[in-house]
Amino acid sequence: MNQRLSQLTNWLKENEISCGFITSTPNVFYLTNFYTEPHERLLGLFVFQNEEPILICPSMEVAQARAAGWQNEIIGFSDTDNPWELIQKAIAKRNINVTKVALEKEHLTVERYEQITKLFPTASFISAEEKLHLLRMVKDEKEAAILREAAKLADLGVEIGVNAISEGKTELDVLATIEFELKRKGVRQMSFDTMVLTGLKTAAPHGTPGLAKMTKGDFVLFDLGVVLDGYCSDITRTVAFGDISDKQKEIYNTVLKAQLAAVEASKPGVIIGDLDKTARTIIASAGYGEYFTHRLGHGLGIDVHEFPSLNETNQMLLQPGMAYTIEPGIYVPEIGGVRIEDDLIITADGAEVLTKYPKELQIIK
Amino acid sequence: MNQRLSQLTNWLKENEISCGFITSTPNVFYLTNFYTEPHERLLGLFVFQNEEPILICPSMEVAQARAAGWQNEIIGFSDTDNPWELIQKAIAKRNINVTKVALEKEHLTVERYEQITKLFPTASFISAEEKLHLLRMVKDEKEAAILREAAKLADLGVEIGVNAISEGKTELDVLATIEFELKRKGVRQMSFDTMVLTGLKTAAPHGTPGLAKMTKGDFVLFDLGVVLDGYCSDITRTVAFGDISDKQKEIYNTVLKAQLAAVEASKPGVIIGDLDKTARTIIASAGYGEYFTHRLGHGLGIDVHEFPSLNETNQMLLQPGMAYTIEPGIYVPEIGGVRIEDDLIITADGAEVLTKYPKELQIIK
Repeated sequence: MNQRLSQLTNWLKENEISCGFITSTPNVFYLTNFYTEPHERLLGLFVFQNEEPILICPSMEVAQARAAGWQNEIIGFSDTDNPWELIQKAIAKRNINVTKVALEKEHLTVERYEQITKLFPTASFISAEEKLHLLRMVKDEKEAAILREAAKLADLGVEIGVNAISEGKTELDVLATIEFELKRKGVRQMSFDTMVLTGLKTAAPHGTPGLAKMTKGDFVLFDLGVVLDGYCSDITRTVAFGDISDKQKEIYNTVLKAQLAAVEASKPGVIIGDLDKTARTIIASAGYGEYFTHRLGHGLGIDVHEFPSLNETNQMLLQPGMAYTIEPGIYVPEIGGVRIEDDLIITADGAEVLTKYPKELQIIK
Repeated sequence: MNQRLSQLTNWLKENEISCGFITSTPNVFYLTNFYTEPHERLLGLFVFQNEEPILICPSMEVAQARAAGWQNEIIGFSDTDNPWELIQKAIAKRNINVTKVALEKEHLTVERYEQITKLFPTASFISAEEKLHLLRMVKDEKEAAILREAAKLADLGVEIGVNAISEGKTELDVLATIEFELKRKGVRQMSFDTMVLTGLKTAAPHGTPGLAKMTKGDFVLFDLGVVLDGYCSDITRTVAFGDISDKQKEIYNTVLKAQLAAVEASKPGVIIGDLDKTARTIIASAGYGEYFTHRLGHGLGIDVHEFPSLNETNQMLLQPGMAYTIEPGIYVPEIGGVRIEDDLIITADGAEVLTKYPKELQIIK
């Protein structure tokens, strides 16, 4: 049994939970190394205190699960099988008294919940999610190595984008160039919809790229990432196209100062909320407090947003292996917006910054 | 109240259902014209027999919902609000005795279901899904017009791909070219992961594009679609790169014959399963029955796979407004695969084929 499964098993024992039923693609991947998107078909992993775990997946994917390294029982079902009957038989063989089941309540659908409650009519059901969030939050060396490579491809995406800026090109032109070049290098999936924004559209933290044209005197904001071996990267850079005003420069340098300070402050033992405050105080002192409208950052891993959340109220301490983004921003509706975002991983005595594209203000001529 | 909501309301009355609680992005869009992907935040639509419906969404999206044309009540909630308390108050004002609630059981999570059962502790809960599938299955004129335009962009995608084929280019090179050109034309989203496969990889109906190179004598298979104004297109074409064997030609022409026959047979009143049989019989008669390993096609609309399912056992009758794909294929592991897919919509007396890229065997020199 792999270490991740052992950690989950220990948690079951400590909390007298008969079994865990894990059903989301990211969590099944985390625990089994088998990544699949079964769409409307069932995917599940039963984990017990002492008995052999069971993976449930469509029969056409059993070979992939084996290839991913899963050596325990697999229930493969065809479109004409009832997977719940197969599950019932497999669990009956284990002869366990199921009194308490941990589920992914934020993922499992009512339809499947009704099936599970039929299997275990006298059991109580609790959430497995917080425990899984906490396990996934601390990355091991193998995960750190993948995140490092994913970050390099994010750097490359920004580099391609910055090189593609020219008068008259649209946001979508530049965006398409980035994804074209990354796909040619073998990138199969972006970790979210790539964002290329220019002009006043940069002032919307979640704007949608369109046919707005690159115009001298504007900011151009890139926010993008790739999925590599199941893990996400996420970078934001903002550059100036042509000469910009002193006010725009002040905004840029304020964000940069806040970002650098939060990166610098990242080390084991620091309260996460204090990291947010470090950046927020710098931005507020420069008079832009009301324009920094979101949290400092978010955990990063199999999901592009995962634990920990870097917000002002999070009292959790940073610890080695935590991977997250630092991405302060200032968004002034009548001027435009700037955001600078890096991916970091906490080390034994500080932090390694994974994204390395330069952050000093760049003026594209 | 729009016609779609009225149809749902009538269903509530006929079945003595107190209210419907609709939570998936596609179904909320269908009923309100408001398209949003709220991720972990709640999106919901309460529909009653006689009272005003309520839309629930994050407060930052209220303006978009209004812009989309929603004129009834909206509950906008911030990240610090408890949306369930706001829902409870809004429903209390309506003074309804809620005894039976229709939910999207295949979409709603256990976490939210637990909230709903607290709101209505004595109610029973049934599924709203089948009714919504049936409503969405029949398209109106406005929907047909969008599907027509989405199909044109799918045609264009194939055209770009076929033009990009040349010796030594990889599947990903050609794929990236297609998406680059479509994005530049304003396409924001493909309706699924674009597929460009060559060589023996064409023999896997759900293969993954990679670094395999275009080589003379091979098939190249394109399967792609775009999302336009919330609606999907989906086309497959297979072309020959350079001269191919007589066996390959026989396979191609068998698929084409089966595809044309099923298109020709499409008209109101036909049993859907018979359409599948029409194509399957032609392929089986040519000796390739075992290599046609999937259903004939699927409904198409807001989801790229929706009602009706075109499989051998579906006894439903075709009716005007149904939109679906016809996509027979033959996949011979040691030779390669061919699939040809069109999008159709049933008219008063036949069918309109929406995708128009040529289907005769094309040999790219």
